[in-house]
Amino acid sequence: MNPISFTCDYNEGAHPLILRRLAETNLRQEPGYGEDSFCASAKEKIRSAIGRPEAEVFFLVGGTQTNSTVIDAMLGRYEGVIAAETGHIAVHESGAVEFCGHKVITLPQHDGKIAVDELEAYLEHFHADPTWPHMVYPGMVYISFPTEYGTLYTKDEISRIFDICRRFGIKLFIDGARLGYGLMSDACDMTIRDLAGLCDAFYIGGTKVGALCGEAVVFPSGNVPPHFFTIIKQHGALLAKGRLLGIQFDTLFTDDLYFKISRNAIERAMELKAVFSRRGIPFHIDSPSNQQFPILTREQMKALEGKVLFEIWDTLPDGRVVTRFATSWCSVREQIDYLDSII
Amino acid sequence: MNPISFTCDYNEGAHPLILRRLAETNLRQEPGYGEDSFCASAKEKIRSAIGRPEAEVFFLVGGTQTNSTVIDAMLGRYEGVIAAETGHIAVHESGAVEFCGHKVITLPQHDGKIAVDELEAYLEHFHADPTWPHMVYPGMVYISFPTEYGTLYTKDEISRIFDICRRFGIKLFIDGARLGYGLMSDACDMTIRDLAGLCDAFYIGGTKVGALCGEAVVFPSGNVPPHFFTIIKQHGALLAKGRLLGIQFDTLFTDDLYFKISRNAIERAMELKAVFSRRGIPFHIDSPSNQQFPILTREQMKALEGKVLFEIWDTLPDGRVVTRFATSWCSVREQIDYLDSII
Amino acid sequence: MNPISFTCDYNEGAHPLILRRLAETNLRQEPGYGEDSFCASAKEKIRSAIGRPEAEVFFLVGGTQTNSTVIDAMLGRYEGVIAAETGHIAVHESGAVEFCGHKVITLPQHDGKIAVDELEAYLEHFHADPTWPHMVYPGMVYISFPTEYGTLYTKDEISRIFDICRRFGIKLFIDGARLGYGLMSDACDMTIRDLAGLCDAFYIGGTKVGALCGEAVVFPSGNVPPHFFTIIKQHGALLAKGRLLGIQFDTLFTDDLYFKISRNAIERAMELKAVFSRRGIPFHIDSPSNQQFPILTREQMKALEGKVLFEIWDTLPDGRVVTRFATSWCSVREQIDYLDSII
Amino acid sequence: MNPISFTCDYNEGAHPLILRRLAETNLRQEPGYGEDSFCASAKEKIRSAIGRPEAEVFFLVGGTQTNSTVIDAMLGRYEGVIAAETGHIAVHESGAVEFCGHKVITLPQHDGKIAVDELEAYLEHFHADPTWPHMVYPGMVYISFPTEYGTLYTKDEISRIFDICRRFGIKLFIDGARLGYGLMSDACDMTIRDLAGLCDAFYIGGTKVGALCGEAVVFPSGNVPPHFFTIIKQHGALLAKGRLLGIQFDTLFTDDLYFKISRNAIERAMELKAVFSRRGIPFHIDSPSNQQFPILTREQMKALEGKVLFEIWDTLPDGRVVTRFATSWCSVREQIDYLDSII
Repeated sequence: MNPISFTCDYNEGAHPLILRRLAETNLRQEPGYGEDSFCASAKEKIRSAIGRPEAEVFFLVGGTQTNSTVIDAMLGRYEGVIAAETGHIAVHESGAVEFCGHKVITLPQHDGKIAVDELEAYLEHFHADPTWPHMVYPGMVYISFPTEYGTLYTKDEISRIFDICRRFGIKLFIDGARLGYGLMSDACDMTIRDLAGLCDAFYIGGTKVGALCGEAVVFPSGNVPPHFFTIIKQHGALLAKGRLLGIQFDTLFTDDLYFKISRNAIERAMELKAVFSRRGIPFHIDSPSNQQFPILTREQMKALEGKVLFEIWDTLPDGRVVTRFATSWCSVREQIDYLDSII
Repeated sequence: MNPISFTCDYNEGAHPLILRRLAETNLRQEPGYGEDSFCASAKEKIRSAIGRPEAEVFFLVGGTQTNSTVIDAMLGRYEGVIAAETGHIAVHESGAVEFCGHKVITLPQHDGKIAVDELEAYLEHFHADPTWPHMVYPGMVYISFPTEYGTLYTKDEISRIFDICRRFGIKLFIDGARLGYGLMSDACDMTIRDLAGLCDAFYIGGTKVGALCGEAVVFPSGNVPPHFFTIIKQHGALLAKGRLLGIQFDTLFTDDLYFKISRNAIERAMELKAVFSRRGIPFHIDSPSNQQFPILTREQMKALEGKVLFEIWDTLPDGRVVTRFATSWCSVREQIDYLDSII
Repeated sequence: MNPISFTCDYNEGAHPLILRRLAETNLRQEPGYGEDSFCASAKEKIRSAIGRPEAEVFFLVGGTQTNSTVIDAMLGRYEGVIAAETGHIAVHESGAVEFCGHKVITLPQHDGKIAVDELEAYLEHFHADPTWPHMVYPGMVYISFPTEYGTLYTKDEISRIFDICRRFGIKLFIDGARLGYGLMSDACDMTIRDLAGLCDAFYIGGTKVGALCGEAVVFPSGNVPPHFFTIIKQHGALLAKGRLLGIQFDTLFTDDLYFKISRNAIERAMELKAVFSRRGIPFHIDSPSNQQFPILTREQMKALEGKVLFEIWDTLPDGRVVTRFATSWCSVREQIDYLDSII
Repeated sequence: MNPISFTCDYNEGAHPLILRRLAETNLRQEPGYGEDSFCASAKEKIRSAIGRPEAEVFFLVGGTQTNSTVIDAMLGRYEGVIAAETGHIAVHESGAVEFCGHKVITLPQHDGKIAVDELEAYLEHFHADPTWPHMVYPGMVYISFPTEYGTLYTKDEISRIFDICRRFGIKLFIDGARLGYGLMSDACDMTIRDLAGLCDAFYIGGTKVGALCGEAVVFPSGNVPPHFFTIIKQHGALLAKGRLLGIQFDTLFTDDLYFKISRNAIERAMELKAVFSRRGIPFHIDSPSNQQFPILTREQMKALEGKVLFEIWDTLPDGRVVTRFATSWCSVREQIDYLDSII
């Protein structure tokens, strides 16, 4: 028997309804580049889900691509983007933002989040510094929801960040690669409608939430950067058969599928968390979403070897290992039970 | 009844075997980023198809993305790439190559191709010009096979171009977005093995030849640029669920499917060509592959209106219209017959 | 005796008044980065010379640097710049514009100029093409005055080009690396005030017109791009001791020195032209400014060897050589007489 | 009487010998772009000063320009550069390195320096992280000598850093914008010959050490990046009248002028330091070079107001102000005495 993998939330294919939809529509002739009827329908459903008929929606293929394309499109040539030092764009995107010419300005992370007060202090300090024209102008704040540590900003925190951004005339962009897993967490005090009103742009992650690929970028008030279609293509991010993305998001946003499968991941994650907690195994961070970070001893690691896969996050001075276990849209109770049985 | 579309070769989804394979393997857990077993298998089959066990293969998502990523990875900072003035990178990629900092140096096109002698003359002239260090160094030749006009370089032409490149110490890169349609043309005097031995890099187009998306980049002698994986990610071109690409190319390179469906497009294209020829309708260019460019009168256009879709390529001074009709991997005889019946 | 050089207009140092001014002010303490009193004074004099108190002026160091910095600052991420195929940015700047991510879109040259009608046709054709979002958006027209061939646009031509730009909502930028030599030509029907009203930005070349270095960028209606100071620094174009540029332009724009020394170059150029004309030596192009392009036979070349230096521009099929002779702000009558005596 | 400025080391023009040399050679005709006889002579003198006939030397105009051009030329597309969090490229260059596509990876600063052990730990940790191909590869270490805080790496520290770089196969680049002020410090235990043997590239700052502008980039073992001349031009960093740089460095490296005037700055700095020390005024950092950072009370600031200019570096919680006083190549004893008399 193959080991069960909790290494990440993109180990499997796509939700079966997506595959069915792809098969059913396969030979229907449609225009390319996102001008197909599936994309149109999916966009409409997303606008409806966020309660904003004026929103503009674009479908891109992957997360790093989406981050660098959107950030580059929204920033001026001379501007950089503020992120937590643990932000995905700061660490794990091979410098894709810098490749587009923009500095990622890092702030300290606290459980994967930037602190609202530190953001404000940074911006005030920057603008008070007479040498600021010699520095990179901070033109955007990037946050991920949930963060790379599975944690969540509260509605109040995002509201305050957005207020600060508006006060300084800069943008707020929310990386929602795992958006569903954030919104469906018991710890989340926001709806997708709330979130759409608290930023200049965000994206709804598909790759990690049941799609084969795809991220839906939303400009909530129709505030799409000029010539964004061309910019997408310039960044190599325009899919010829846009239908592949349209069909997937159309399916995910039919009958709340996106939210239902996200909720599944959360429920499995809480069961998984309980597996560890019951045994007194501590966590590196108290995550309310689909990524969990138990700290395992070498013996515990041994017990799982060859049976369960997960990620090594860090090694502590005492030899214990910070691990990451991720559940997903397709995790099943049996997988958690199996883990419970062997640990 | 919907009109039948000949506008391009990416109007439909994917070959049914691909969809079946996706469904069959859907819940199998596999690592991300192209390290799955499907990618490994697909790479092996491609190496075998080109007869080069030493080749390195990478799967990217789309054509423009592949062109800009590969060209940027293979060129020095100070180098540009030579292309026909009608080359895809020179015209229809939103400046993606320039976005990466490289000039596209254009040579005149002749039926969509660069002339071997003109290439040689250009390079000799460049190197003889004492001001050349003030210019963009031509570090690569880009050709498309087939070209944007459906035409084909002969084996002799490519051999001579490759010889010239080696003489000047520069690279030859072949854009094979429609590679199957070139290789399966009756006018083609090369195999994929020949082609693999006549360039520094090429790619096998999937998007236009039966896949939902995907291009297989081949470095025939294992001459992959250093850190190419990181460069792919930096360009936003790394697919998290690499399995989507692996499964598709594995299917396409099983039992010669790629070549068989390519051949289908060619046979339909020749039938389509005959439909026009029989009526004495001239062509803008004599294309031996899946794109055909009949010149239609306004009356002929009228007759097709609402029944058959195609692309407008250009308008001639006398009012006639150069059109493009493309067949594809899934074109069927009935579509050609229908066209025949209404024109 | 050393040979006399007509190879270019930057073979010597600077006008002696500039050196004197540098020496006189040498130990005066002034702020850096262009915030010194000399820059302030020079800007004021330039505003006055062009009759536009609202103009914004910036001093950069060299021509290629100025072109790429200004073009990058004024263009959107997705835009390219239209230039004659012989334009300096298209040929002799090592791809500095592409390095900043923008395509140089070339139009045919006619005596070094773009044709107004061809520009209009290009823009109309572009906007009529339904595939334009897949192409590089032409966001600016770049012309050089005088051109790389010493020729001049008439006031009517520039007016029409500027009208076309405004009609399409794009920018007009004039490279004035040799501006003085254009304005002081007998063939010029414009003043610097006229020119300032017929573009979105231009620069007054210092390097080739009597300065050690320096180009004065002018945004005639105060239309400076946001954060241009930071953009200058980002492009490596900010001089710490801005006084070096301020003193030079302040001197050049005192008592019309810039125009007087430009006129000197023109007068010497016309004498030089006469030297060749009197002998029936033809010209490659009929240039009214400080660059002249006589076509010399091998024998004539021989006669000048070791005595007079000039540039080889091209070799004709019959073996004759197109040469370039440039006069400058410091050319003297004796140099022309000497040439006359030996040819 | 004007206030005396200690704000920076580029408040004045150039050493008088430089101006004299410029005047004496002014009308001598020389080729452009650094191919003049002055550059050739200056390069020879620099090679001799560092005792490395095989070294390659290039003259650029300013510090930010030099940093971004050299770093971009020496790095691969996918590589970033490690710097102290207070490094000039990390803070005060408007993102010029990121503009070229490279991330600046910051390490903590200790008195303006990176800690050798922390550098080693960072590199070891990076290479041990299995996700490293998703990150920016650290391809270079950048240090400034002296640092932005006036401090100096010891010969042992630089040797160990260089050893680490070689162990990991990466480059060491030393920003010597104030090189003379470092080498002439009493605390320096290296000669310029030593330094040239302990890095892959460094530059000898002219702008801040007696020149109007100019930095001399040295590749000590002839290890110049391919096509570096073209890269310089591509970055807008090629000076047409290269003689301006050649004459200046030729003068500075005649009779040890560069070192003598650097020593003057150090002697004045130590006198200035004594002025504050004698009064028990503390320093933010113990700097052995030409930048001093006394911490002044509001009353002390008041006493200097309108009489002496300096930079505000930071404000402490107790209201005291960290200031920067810089001496330079042209500081005189009388200036220090004046300061002493009024404080």
